[in-house]
Amino acid sequence: MIDVAIIGASGYTGGELLRFLKNHENVNIKAATSRQYNGINVSKVHPHLRGYDIKFKDVAPENIDVDLVFTATPHGASMDIVPDLIERDIKVVDLSGDYRFDDISIYEKWYGLEHSAPLEAVYGLPEVYRAEIKNANLVANPGCFPTGAILATIPIAKENLVENVIVDSKTGVSGGGIKPAPAFHYPNCSDNVIPYAVTNHRHMPEIQQEVAKFGDVKVSFTPHLVPVIRGILTTVHTFLKEDVTTDYIKDIYDKFYESEPFVRVLDTDEIPRLSAVRGSNYCDIGSFQIDANGRIVVVSAIDNLVKGASGQAIQNMNIMFGFNEKESINIIGLHP
Amino acid sequence: MIDVAIIGASGYTGGELLRFLKNHENVNIKAATSRQYNGINVSKVHPHLRGYDIKFKDVAPENIDVDLVFTATPHGASMDIVPDLIERDIKVVDLSGDYRFDDISIYEKWYGLEHSAPLEAVYGLPEVYRAEIKNANLVANPGCFPTGAILATIPIAKENLVENVIVDSKTGVSGGGIKPAPAFHYPNCSDNVIPYAVTNHRHMPEIQQEVAKFGDVKVSFTPHLVPVIRGILTTVHTFLKEDVTTDYIKDIYDKFYESEPFVRVLDTDEIPRLSAVRGSNYCDIGSFQIDANGRIVVVSAIDNLVKGASGQAIQNMNIMFGFNEKESINIIGLHP
Amino acid sequence: MIDVAIIGASGYTGGELLRFLKNHENVNIKAATSRQYNGINVSKVHPHLRGYDIKFKDVAPENIDVDLVFTATPHGASMDIVPDLIERDIKVVDLSGDYRFDDISIYEKWYGLEHSAPLEAVYGLPEVYRAEIKNANLVANPGCFPTGAILATIPIAKENLVENVIVDSKTGVSGGGIKPAPAFHYPNCSDNVIPYAVTNHRHMPEIQQEVAKFGDVKVSFTPHLVPVIRGILTTVHTFLKEDVTTDYIKDIYDKFYESEPFVRVLDTDEIPRLSAVRGSNYCDIGSFQIDANGRIVVVSAIDNLVKGASGQAIQNMNIMFGFNEKESINIIGLHP
Amino acid sequence: MIDVAIIGASGYTGGELLRFLKNHENVNIKAATSRQYNGINVSKVHPHLRGYDIKFKDVAPENIDVDLVFTATPHGASMDIVPDLIERDIKVVDLSGDYRFDDISIYEKWYGLEHSAPLEAVYGLPEVYRAEIKNANLVANPGCFPTGAILATIPIAKENLVENVIVDSKTGVSGGGIKPAPAFHYPNCSDNVIPYAVTNHRHMPEIQQEVAKFGDVKVSFTPHLVPVIRGILTTVHTFLKEDVTTDYIKDIYDKFYESEPFVRVLDTDEIPRLSAVRGSNYCDIGSFQIDANGRIVVVSAIDNLVKGASGQAIQNMNIMFGFNEKESINIIGLHP
Repeated sequence: MIDVAIIGASGYTGGELLRFLKNHENVNIKAATSRQYNGINVSKVHPHLRGYDIKFKDVAPENIDVDLVFTATPHGASMDIVPDLIERDIKVVDLSGDYRFDDISIYEKWYGLEHSAPLEAVYGLPEVYRAEIKNANLVANPGCFPTGAILATIPIAKENLVENVIVDSKTGVSGGGIKPAPAFHYPNCSDNVIPYAVTNHRHMPEIQQEVAKFGDVKVSFTPHLVPVIRGILTTVHTFLKEDVTTDYIKDIYDKFYESEPFVRVLDTDEIPRLSAVRGSNYCDIGSFQIDANGRIVVVSAIDNLVKGASGQAIQNMNIMFGFNEKESINIIGLHP
Repeated sequence: MIDVAIIGASGYTGGELLRFLKNHENVNIKAATSRQYNGINVSKVHPHLRGYDIKFKDVAPENIDVDLVFTATPHGASMDIVPDLIERDIKVVDLSGDYRFDDISIYEKWYGLEHSAPLEAVYGLPEVYRAEIKNANLVANPGCFPTGAILATIPIAKENLVENVIVDSKTGVSGGGIKPAPAFHYPNCSDNVIPYAVTNHRHMPEIQQEVAKFGDVKVSFTPHLVPVIRGILTTVHTFLKEDVTTDYIKDIYDKFYESEPFVRVLDTDEIPRLSAVRGSNYCDIGSFQIDANGRIVVVSAIDNLVKGASGQAIQNMNIMFGFNEKESINIIGLHP
Repeated sequence: MIDVAIIGASGYTGGELLRFLKNHENVNIKAATSRQYNGINVSKVHPHLRGYDIKFKDVAPENIDVDLVFTATPHGASMDIVPDLIERDIKVVDLSGDYRFDDISIYEKWYGLEHSAPLEAVYGLPEVYRAEIKNANLVANPGCFPTGAILATIPIAKENLVENVIVDSKTGVSGGGIKPAPAFHYPNCSDNVIPYAVTNHRHMPEIQQEVAKFGDVKVSFTPHLVPVIRGILTTVHTFLKEDVTTDYIKDIYDKFYESEPFVRVLDTDEIPRLSAVRGSNYCDIGSFQIDANGRIVVVSAIDNLVKGASGQAIQNMNIMFGFNEKESINIIGLHP
Repeated sequence: MIDVAIIGASGYTGGELLRFLKNHENVNIKAATSRQYNGINVSKVHPHLRGYDIKFKDVAPENIDVDLVFTATPHGASMDIVPDLIERDIKVVDLSGDYRFDDISIYEKWYGLEHSAPLEAVYGLPEVYRAEIKNANLVANPGCFPTGAILATIPIAKENLVENVIVDSKTGVSGGGIKPAPAFHYPNCSDNVIPYAVTNHRHMPEIQQEVAKFGDVKVSFTPHLVPVIRGILTTVHTFLKEDVTTDYIKDIYDKFYESEPFVRVLDTDEIPRLSAVRGSNYCDIGSFQIDANGRIVVVSAIDNLVKGASGQAIQNMNIMFGFNEKESINIIGLHP
């Protein structure tokens, strides 16, 4: 049994962490922090948690004494909190972008912030870094778009089959967080499709960093907001350097992910869709179809709040503490 | 460990039964029947079940030998199957309307069918009939609208506080089943609200039957289709016969449901909403506000596929076999 | 040709006024005011108006010199602006609640504001007050819920057929305005149904005021937020004092509205739905079904931004200036 | 004044043709055919047309005597009807795919049909073929995806700036027609994103045919179904052969479409979105952003039932008969 705390528990990723951790056999939730909602039951913000006796606490990070902290804090805020926790031998899974970059200058350029406290961290994608996560003190939980994009791309990057990769993603609105804004106002985004940051989204360099480790590949990325609550559907388009078949490619993905508990490689007569992963920690990958121009299409689907955030964070915690990797996140998706 | 079968497993309620039963510690799924999909993995129809090794089988009911059968069959079809199962000492939870009525003539009038095989059955609403369910061989699982409407109404009916009750329900589209039809065609029901069967829905006499057992109350019922996948929000409007307060009423509900694992009575500063129960077996009940005309508003929220169908069916099975009543359905809702 | 101005043109009702007025043969838009967006093309806020050369202006009301002003200003703000305009012989259609009440004390109680400048105004429901509107200087445009509720209720109120009326309304999210707020955040209201102000919405006394002019009727009102962009579907439930038929009632509605250009009374085999009126100025009324308890159901559907706001405002203007009442708002709904 | 007929008026494109033609000053609707709904008012199928006195007629094409026929018939059915109409000197705008291909063998391969009656036809994209449409007897109205994709691509194809073009489209569900099917069942496609025909959609060769006329370009195409009623958002990704700027590209588009009444080229600080064109005949084109890899993103937005079908068909008719090209389709979009 370990004690954990969630710093910044009033957002969507905080709510999801609570949903999973409540049923985790080895975890005791010692604190769910929130300045704004201090003393209030979490169910007033996260109504699905009605009946659970947990209250938000406005407790300073330096007063938290637990085995692991999830920092569900905004970009720029984590770097103020994490170093002290690490210093005090508390393990951390950070859900912000602050510790995802090997090269701090890339972070500073794309996030428009000076990084006050660089630390060694492991990029928390278990399918790639499981061994390193096991021994890590600080895990940088991947971004939502990067999770789906990287998992869809690295098997063919590793085989040196592609050069330029176009990642066209469609994201649900919860990716924008719990705070209301014009872009997420129901009448604006319902019955609509809205591309944004079409060539300059800050998840692009994160995808680029990780894919480049598998091959000499250049990544172009464009996200779109679609009228969906949860989920990211990523369509990877790329021209193959060799004349291979769909089955050949499918075989590469099958082998790459054969031992992975949360990646499902689909038969070629199926296609990933958001409802199959809704609420679950799965990443579905499929298509592998190739057209007459040699362009292949690989599609991935995740729930942005689960495999794209809180579920993956728990998966990382499970690995760090030697728990069953699926503990508390072995949830079947909600379809329809 | 018991063996169970699902007859008619290719519909939405079949998919939900599979979702819950896969994680049930005391249940072995021996058969999930489907004529149309014989031999095909269930995930081809229920994509969230990818990775589970269950195939549909076209097996005749008379060849099924298990401890309990869920008949997820249409109205009129159950009566052809259930009697033989009961005869062979197999317990049954029937999800159709065939065994819900005390008075067969009411069934025959509202369903437009002759009942070929009346049997003694217990109405499967645990909050009312838990003791009877424990010893039942045949449980008639309640309809989706009746579940939310009855639970919202019986505490004040029992106290003899009301006479005429108006039940205005808003249902998600999955209530119409998995089969496409013009009423459930996306362009027709998205961004729309459509009342239907405004005075003659066949769930009305079912609600009436059960509420009348608690008091001399007449029920008027009107359902509306709203652009929601899952969920029924029921607004009960009724004029109080006595001048009482919101707190007085809230107290009645608190006491009525104090030991119930799946009914959550809300504080009077909250209001039930579908997202708080999405995917879960909870029924949230709240409001209790009273206006200057003496009209009280009681609101309930359920997931029509869970507490309104398959979750409640599992709850009934758990009671019938003495399992923990929450086993496999102790799921937190999916919000957002 | 008249000159008009819209004060507060950057909200949804402002956008709709512009949509209609652009095609009005007798109207010149002299000013569309906005403090925040001064000098910016209206299409930056209202993207459907791309290609129209109109810029927001930050012009003070006292500097506006036109024939008619639409005050699309919030409750409480109109009373600061309207008196001076009326004083200067400018006609006004006010879209706020400031001038809708005969009894100022009711306004003050329900809006929680002191009324600084009561004025004589005509309630802008053409189906009731057409003659008075024709000669009015100040028209108080009805609220969105009241428009649908009053039109559905007054024919039977007038015939003295009912006593207590329960109005259960389902509204689209645009009714909450253009400003983001938690209640209108996409992940909160998509796939959800949320009752609010269940016994104390400030549109209740407005409905009560107008219905009472037709009969001794008490109104109880409950609104619900549904995942719809535009539209209000109102279900009126009430017990009939006499034993009459659906056809008898339908006949009453047919006669009441026989000359009305924007009310469509439906055949009894049809039911109002939002998509039939989407984007249009129609109010569809139908059902008239009666159940065994003597409860009748009357349903109305409007677009809350058109017949429930800007379309009706234009209709009032057309009447005030003797234009064709349908000019510029004779638009067919957008279905699907 | 001309007489027109719509063959196959009970589908969505039929409903839209009726919506526009009702307000067309030079058109008399002589027949709206439907076998299934013979004698029934069109509003029973198209509820927004309530109040219009038009009935479906089951009249054989050979008995139709008008100036122009819209064949809103399925692929394969048009070829049985159109030749006789043309023979009898009736002008035709065909909304099916039957007459869109220069090379019949391509049609036969991609549609899986033998073409029984090839005829000379003009491809009905006014921005490219206005002069030819003016004199055409038979106009093949473009497909919905091709309309948005071709308009977004040809300006840069013409400038010889690109070689391989990836077209990633997101379509509303009405594109699938009025007939219910599992793919369009509300619980399946709400809150979901579903790629389909990822490399082999039959609109691909149509896009290829037209783009190739402007430059040596290869087109790869992938459509996605999104939870939207109307609209196609097309994201074109392509690598530029030269190092040019966003402004340079924007200038090319500005010039290409400067006289076009229904194409709006957006400022580079804006991005096309579906709500800006909903219900209207506009095609919005924008973005023109270029990333560090030399990939440019061009985005177009149309309403698939208007510019992607019926609106464009009316535009073609207006050109064929020398009417004002905007007559009856000069409609402002419905936002929000």
